[in-house]
Amino acid sequence: MFVLGIDPGLSRCGYGCVSKGPDGFRATAAGVVTTDPAEPLPRRLAGLRADLAELISELEPDTVVVERIFFRSNARTAMSVGQASGIALLTAVEQGCRVAWYTAAEVKLAVTGYGNATKEQVQEMVVRLARLEQVPRPPDAADALALAICHLGASPWAREKALFA
Amino acid sequence: MFVLGIDPGLSRCGYGCVSKGPDGFRATAAGVVTTDPAEPLPRRLAGLRADLAELISELEPDTVVVERIFFRSNARTAMSVGQASGIALLTAVEQGCRVAWYTAAEVKLAVTGYGNATKEQVQEMVVRLARLEQVPRPPDAADALALAICHLGASPWAREKALFA
Repeated sequence: MFVLGIDPGLSRCGYGCVSKGPDGFRATAAGVVTTDPAEPLPRRLAGLRADLAELISELEPDTVVVERIFFRSNARTAMSVGQASGIALLTAVEQGCRVAWYTAAEVKLAVTGYGNATKEQVQEMVVRLARLEQVPRPPDAADALALAICHLGASPWAREKALFA
Repeated sequence: MFVLGIDPGLSRCGYGCVSKGPDGFRATAAGVVTTDPAEPLPRRLAGLRADLAELISELEPDTVVVERIFFRSNARTAMSVGQASGIALLTAVEQGCRVAWYTAAEVKLAVTGYGNATKEQVQEMVVRLARLEQVPRPPDAADALALAICHLGASPWAREKALFA
Protein backbone atom coordinates (compact mmCIF):
# COMPACT_ATOMS: atom_id res chain seq x y z
CA MET A 1 0.00 0.00 0.00
CA PHE A 2 1.37 3.36 -1.08
CA VAL A 3 0.40 6.44 0.88
CA LEU A 4 1.29 9.96 -0.26
CA GLY A 5 1.51 12.57 2.49
CA ILE A 6 1.02 16.21 1.54
CA ASP A 7 1.98 19.11 3.82
CA PRO A 8 0.02 21.89 2.13
CA GLY A 9 1.62 25.23 1.37
CA LEU A 10 1.61 27.60 -1.56
CA SER A 11 5.29 28.57 -1.72
CA ARG A 12 6.46 25.13 -0.60
CA CYS A 13 4.16 22.11 -0.55
CA GLY A 14 5.87 19.06 0.95
CA TYR A 15 5.19 15.54 -0.29
CA GLY A 16 6.36 12.14 0.82
CA CYS A 17 5.35 8.68 -0.35
CA VAL A 18 5.66 5.71 1.99
CA SER A 19 4.93 2.03 1.54
CA LYS A 20 4.40 -0.52 4.28
CA GLY A 21 5.58 -4.06 3.74
CA PRO A 22 6.36 -7.05 5.97
CA ASP A 23 9.68 -5.41 6.87
CA GLY A 24 8.13 -2.09 7.89
CA PHE A 25 7.88 1.35 6.32
CA ARG A 26 9.86 2.50 3.33
CA ALA A 27 10.01 6.02 1.90
CA THR A 28 9.73 5.83 -1.88
CA ALA A 29 9.71 9.54 -2.69
CA ALA A 30 9.98 12.84 -0.86
CA GLY A 31 10.36 16.44 -1.86
CA VAL A 32 8.56 19.71 -2.33
CA VAL A 33 6.47 21.31 -5.03
CA THR A 34 7.16 25.04 -5.15
CA THR A 35 5.44 28.00 -6.75
CA ASP A 36 7.10 31.31 -7.46
CA PRO A 37 5.87 34.09 -5.13
CA ALA A 38 6.56 36.56 -7.96
CA GLU A 39 3.88 34.90 -10.12
CA PRO A 40 0.22 36.02 -9.95
CA LEU A 41 -1.75 34.05 -7.34
CA PRO A 42 -4.20 32.31 -9.74
CA ARG A 43 -1.28 30.98 -11.81
CA ARG A 44 0.47 29.75 -8.67
CA LEU A 45 -2.69 27.87 -7.65
CA ALA A 46 -3.06 26.37 -11.13
CA GLY A 47 0.63 25.42 -11.12
CA LEU A 48 0.29 23.70 -7.75
CA ARG A 49 -2.69 21.73 -8.99
CA ALA A 50 -0.89 20.65 -12.17
CA ASP A 51 2.23 19.60 -10.24
CA LEU A 52 0.26 17.64 -7.63
CA ALA A 53 -1.79 15.92 -10.35
CA GLU A 54 1.42 14.90 -12.13
CA LEU A 55 2.93 13.65 -8.88
CA ILE A 56 -0.13 11.53 -8.08
CA SER A 57 -0.21 10.02 -11.59
CA GLU A 58 3.45 9.17 -11.30
CA LEU A 59 3.52 7.75 -7.77
CA GLU A 60 0.07 6.09 -7.95
CA PRO A 61 -0.70 6.17 -4.22
CA ASP A 62 -3.81 4.38 -2.96
CA THR A 63 -4.41 7.08 -0.41
CA VAL A 64 -3.44 10.74 -0.14
CA VAL A 65 -3.08 12.13 3.38
CA VAL A 66 -3.26 15.89 3.86
CA GLU A 67 -2.53 17.82 7.03
CA ARG A 68 -5.71 19.08 8.66
CA ILE A 69 -5.20 22.69 9.61
CA PHE A 70 -6.90 24.88 12.18
CA PHE A 71 -6.75 28.62 11.87
CA ARG A 72 -6.22 29.75 15.39
CA SER A 73 -2.81 31.21 14.92
CA ASN A 74 -1.25 32.81 11.88
CA ALA A 75 -3.89 34.72 9.94
CA ARG A 76 -1.29 36.02 7.48
CA THR A 77 -0.57 32.59 6.05
CA ALA A 78 -4.05 31.14 6.73
CA MET A 79 -5.39 32.20 3.36
CA SER A 80 -2.65 30.59 1.26
CA VAL A 81 -2.47 27.45 3.41
CA GLY A 82 -6.26 27.09 3.12
CA GLN A 83 -6.08 27.50 -0.64
CA ALA A 84 -3.24 24.97 -0.94
CA SER A 85 -5.00 22.41 1.27
CA GLY A 86 -8.18 22.75 -0.78
CA ILE A 87 -6.21 22.14 -3.96
CA ALA A 88 -4.50 19.08 -2.47
CA LEU A 89 -7.82 17.52 -1.37
CA LEU A 90 -9.48 18.35 -4.68
CA THR A 91 -6.65 16.99 -6.82
CA ALA A 92 -6.42 13.77 -4.81
CA VAL A 93 -10.10 12.96 -5.22
CA GLU A 94 -10.09 13.97 -8.90
CA GLN A 95 -7.24 11.50 -9.45
CA GLY A 96 -9.31 8.71 -7.91
CA CYS A 97 -7.42 8.38 -4.62
CA ARG A 98 -8.88 7.85 -1.19
CA VAL A 99 -8.26 10.91 0.95
CA ALA A 100 -7.57 11.20 4.67
CA TRP A 101 -6.44 13.96 6.96
CA TYR A 102 -4.80 14.28 10.37
CA THR A 103 -3.97 17.25 12.54
CA ALA A 104 -0.33 18.06 13.31
CA ALA A 105 -0.90 16.87 16.90
CA GLU A 106 -2.24 13.51 15.68
CA VAL A 107 0.83 13.09 13.45
CA LYS A 108 3.22 13.94 16.28
CA LEU A 109 1.48 11.51 18.62
CA ALA A 110 1.52 8.72 16.01
CA VAL A 111 5.15 9.18 15.02
CA THR A 112 6.82 10.02 18.34
CA GLY A 113 4.27 8.90 20.94
CA TYR A 114 3.97 12.51 22.14
CA GLY A 115 1.46 15.07 20.80
CA ASN A 116 3.64 18.05 21.65
CA ALA A 117 6.84 16.67 20.13
CA THR A 118 9.21 19.18 18.51
CA LYS A 119 9.80 19.33 14.75
CA GLU A 120 13.24 17.82 15.37
CA GLN A 121 11.83 14.86 17.31
CA VAL A 122 9.35 14.16 14.50
CA GLN A 123 12.10 14.37 11.89
CA GLU A 124 14.32 12.01 13.87
CA MET A 125 11.54 9.43 14.11
CA VAL A 126 10.79 9.79 10.38
CA VAL A 127 14.43 8.97 9.63
CA ARG A 128 14.28 5.86 11.84
CA LEU A 129 10.85 4.62 10.80
CA ALA A 130 11.34 5.14 7.07
CA ARG A 131 14.94 3.90 7.31
CA LEU A 132 16.48 6.99 5.76
CA GLU A 133 20.14 7.96 6.01
CA GLN A 134 19.43 11.56 6.95
CA VAL A 135 16.62 14.02 7.61
CA PRO A 136 14.89 14.84 4.31
CA ARG A 137 15.20 18.49 3.28
CA PRO A 138 13.39 20.82 3.23
CA PRO A 139 11.48 20.08 6.48
CA ASP A 140 8.18 20.15 4.54
CA ALA A 141 9.21 16.84 2.91
CA ALA A 142 9.85 15.27 6.34
CA ASP A 143 6.46 16.53 7.56
CA ALA A 144 4.79 14.94 4.55
CA LEU A 145 6.51 11.60 5.22
CA ALA A 146 5.34 11.82 8.84
CA LEU A 147 1.74 12.25 7.60
CA ALA A 148 2.02 9.13 5.45
CA ILE A 149 3.58 7.12 8.30
CA CYS A 150 0.84 8.32 10.65
CA HIS A 151 -1.83 6.92 8.34
CA LEU A 152 -0.03 3.64 7.64
CA GLY A 153 0.61 3.07 11.33
CA ALA A 154 -2.88 3.98 12.51
CA SER A 155 -5.29 1.41 13.86
CA PRO A 156 -7.99 0.34 11.39
CA TRP A 157 -10.49 2.30 13.50
CA ALA A 158 -8.43 5.52 13.51
CA ARG A 159 -7.73 5.14 9.82
CA GLU A 160 -11.41 4.84 8.95
CA LYS A 161 -12.12 7.88 11.07
CA ALA A 162 -9.49 9.94 9.21
CA LEU A 163 -10.65 8.88 5.75
CA PHE A 164 -13.24 10.88 3.88
CA ALA A 165 -16.05 8.49 2.96
CA MET B 1 -17.46 43.09 -21.86
CA PHE B 2 -18.79 40.35 -19.62
CA VAL B 3 -17.59 40.16 -16.06
CA LEU B 4 -18.43 37.26 -13.74
CA GLY B 5 -18.35 38.05 -10.03
CA ILE B 6 -17.82 35.18 -7.60
CA ASP B 7 -18.53 35.46 -3.86
CA PRO B 8 -16.59 32.41 -2.65
CA GLY B 9 -18.12 29.95 -0.22
CA LEU B 10 -18.23 26.19 0.06
CA SER B 11 -21.88 25.65 1.01
CA ARG B 12 -23.10 28.56 -1.11
CA CYS B 13 -20.90 30.22 -3.72
CA GLY B 14 -22.58 33.27 -5.27
CA TYR B 15 -22.12 34.20 -8.91
CA GLY B 16 -23.33 37.11 -11.00
CA CYS B 17 -22.54 38.06 -14.57
CA VAL B 18 -22.78 41.70 -15.67
CA SER B 19 -22.20 43.38 -19.01
CA LYS B 20 -21.56 47.07 -19.60
CA GLY B 21 -22.93 48.70 -22.72
CA PRO B 22 -23.64 52.26 -23.88
CA ASP B 23 -26.84 52.20 -21.78
CA GLY B 24 -25.12 51.08 -18.59
CA PHE B 25 -24.85 47.83 -16.67
CA ARG B 26 -26.98 44.79 -17.28
CA ALA B 27 -27.12 41.61 -15.19
CA THR B 28 -27.10 38.60 -17.49
CA ALA B 29 -27.02 35.82 -14.90
CA ALA B 30 -27.04 35.47 -11.12
CA GLY B 31 -27.37 32.60 -8.71
CA VAL B 32 -25.48 30.29 -6.40
CA VAL B 33 -23.52 27.09 -6.75
CA THR B 34 -24.07 24.91 -3.72
CA THR B 35 -22.38 21.85 -2.29
CA ASP B 36 -23.97 19.44 0.14
CA PRO B 37 -22.48 19.72 3.66
CA ALA B 38 -23.27 16.02 4.13
CA GLU B 39 -20.81 15.09 1.36
CA PRO B 40 -17.12 14.45 2.15
CA LEU B 41 -15.03 17.66 1.86
CA PRO B 42 -12.82 16.57 -1.08
CA ARG B 43 -15.92 15.73 -3.14
CA ARG B 44 -17.49 19.08 -2.28
CA LEU B 45 -14.35 20.87 -3.46
CA ALA B 46 -14.26 18.84 -6.68
CA GLY B 47 -17.97 19.52 -7.21
CA LEU B 48 -17.47 23.27 -6.73
CA ARG B 49 -14.65 23.25 -9.27
CA ALA B 50 -16.70 21.31 -11.83
CA ASP B 51 -19.72 23.60 -11.39
CA LEU B 52 -17.65 26.80 -11.66
CA ALA B 53 -15.85 25.46 -14.74
CA GLU B 54 -19.20 24.70 -16.38
CA LEU B 55 -20.55 28.13 -15.47
CA ILE B 56 -17.51 29.88 -16.96
CA SER B 57 -17.73 27.84 -20.20
CA GLU B 58 -21.39 28.71 -20.48
CA LEU B 59 -21.26 32.43 -19.65
CA GLU B 60 -17.90 33.07 -21.36
CA PRO B 61 -16.86 36.07 -19.23
CA ASP B 62 -13.73 38.01 -20.21
CA THR B 63 -12.86 38.55 -16.60
CA VAL B 64 -13.69 36.74 -13.36
CA VAL B 65 -13.75 38.87 -10.22
CA VAL B 66 -13.40 37.13 -6.85
CA GLU B 67 -13.85 38.66 -3.41
CA ARG B 68 -10.52 39.18 -1.68
CA ILE B 69 -10.85 37.93 1.87
CA PHE B 70 -8.90 38.73 4.99
CA PHE B 71 -8.96 36.36 7.92
CA ARG B 72 -9.20 38.62 10.89
CA SER B 73 -12.57 37.53 12.06
CA ASN B 74 -14.29 34.19 11.71
CA ALA B 75 -11.74 31.40 12.02
CA ARG B 76 -14.46 28.74 11.86
CA THR B 77 -15.38 29.55 8.27
CA ALA B 78 -11.90 30.78 7.27
CA MET B 79 -10.77 27.35 6.12
CA SER B 80 -13.69 26.65 3.80
CA VAL B 81 -13.82 30.20 2.44
CA GLY B 82 -10.08 30.04 1.74
CA GLN B 83 -10.50 26.72 -0.04
CA ALA B 84 -13.44 28.02 -2.10
CA SER B 85 -11.62 31.22 -3.06
CA GLY B 86 -8.58 29.22 -4.16
CA ILE B 87 -10.77 27.03 -6.34
CA ALA B 88 -12.50 30.05 -7.89
CA LEU B 89 -9.17 31.72 -8.76
CA LEU B 90 -7.71 28.46 -10.07
CA THR B 91 -10.73 27.57 -12.21
CA ALA B 92 -10.93 31.07 -13.71
CA VAL B 93 -7.32 31.06 -14.85
CA GLU B 94 -7.54 27.46 -16.10
CA GLN B 95 -10.52 28.51 -18.24
CA GLY B 96 -8.45 31.28 -19.83
CA CYS B 97 -10.12 34.24 -18.10
CA ARG B 98 -8.44 37.32 -16.70
CA VAL B 99 -8.81 37.37 -12.92
CA ALA B 100 -9.22 40.29 -10.54
CA TRP B 101 -10.11 40.66 -6.90
CA TYR B 102 -11.48 43.34 -4.61
CA THR B 103 -12.06 43.47 -0.87
CA ALA B 104 -15.60 43.78 0.47
CA ALA B 105 -14.83 47.39 1.48
CA GLU B 106 -13.71 48.24 -2.07
CA VAL B 107 -16.92 46.77 -3.47
CA LYS B 108 -19.08 48.72 -1.01
CA LEU B 109 -17.27 51.94 -1.82
CA ALA B 110 -17.59 51.38 -5.57
CA VAL B 111 -21.25 50.43 -5.51
CA THR B 112 -22.66 52.76 -2.84
CA GLY B 113 -19.98 55.45 -2.46
CA TYR B 114 -19.47 54.38 1.16
CA GLY B 115 -16.97 51.71 2.34
CA ASN B 116 -18.99 50.82 5.43
CA ALA B 117 -22.34 50.46 3.65
CA THR B 118 -24.71 47.80 4.95
CA LYS B 119 -25.57 44.65 2.99
CA GLU B 120 -29.01 46.15 2.33
CA GLN B 121 -27.57 49.37 0.90
CA VAL B 122 -25.30 47.35 -1.42
CA GLN B 123 -28.23 45.19 -2.54
CA GLU B 124 -30.39 48.24 -3.23
CA MET B 125 -27.69 49.79 -5.39
CA VAL B 126 -27.17 46.50 -7.24
CA VAL B 127 -30.88 46.47 -8.10
CA ARG B 128 -30.70 50.06 -9.41
CA LEU B 129 -27.38 49.78 -11.25
CA ALA B 130 -28.11 46.42 -12.90
CA ARG B 131 -31.74 47.47 -13.55
CA LEU B 132 -33.26 44.50 -11.76
CA GLU B 133 -36.86 44.28 -10.59
CA GLN B 134 -35.96 42.97 -7.16
CA VAL B 135 -33.03 42.01 -4.95
CA PRO B 136 -31.50 38.78 -6.25
CA ARG B 137 -31.76 35.88 -3.82
CA PRO B 138 -29.89 34.44 -2.06
CA PRO B 139 -27.79 37.45 -0.94
CA ASP B 140 -24.62 35.70 -2.20
CA ALA B 141 -25.87 36.27 -5.77
CA ALA B 142 -26.33 40.00 -5.09
CA ASP B 143 -22.83 40.17 -3.58
CA ALA B 144 -21.42 38.53 -6.70
CA LEU B 145 -23.21 41.04 -8.96
CA ALA B 146 -21.77 43.86 -6.82
CA LEU B 147 -18.27 42.46 -7.40
CA ALA B 148 -18.79 42.46 -11.16
CA ILE B 149 -20.22 46.02 -11.10
CA CYS B 150 -17.29 47.16 -8.97
CA HIS B 151 -14.83 45.95 -11.60
CA LEU B 152 -16.78 47.29 -14.58
CA GLY B 153 -17.19 50.70 -12.93
CA ALA B 154 -13.59 50.99 -11.73
CA SER B 155 -11.18 53.48 -13.25
CA PRO B 156 -8.68 51.96 -15.69
CA TRP B 157 -5.99 52.48 -13.04
CA ALA B 158 -7.94 50.74 -10.27
CA ARG B 159 -8.91 47.95 -12.64
CA GLU B 160 -5.29 47.30 -13.62
CA LYS B 161 -4.35 47.25 -9.95
CA ALA B 162 -7.03 44.66 -9.14
CA LEU B 163 -6.15 42.37 -12.04
CA PHE B 164 -3.64 39.60 -11.64
CA ALA B 165 -0.99 40.13 -14.32
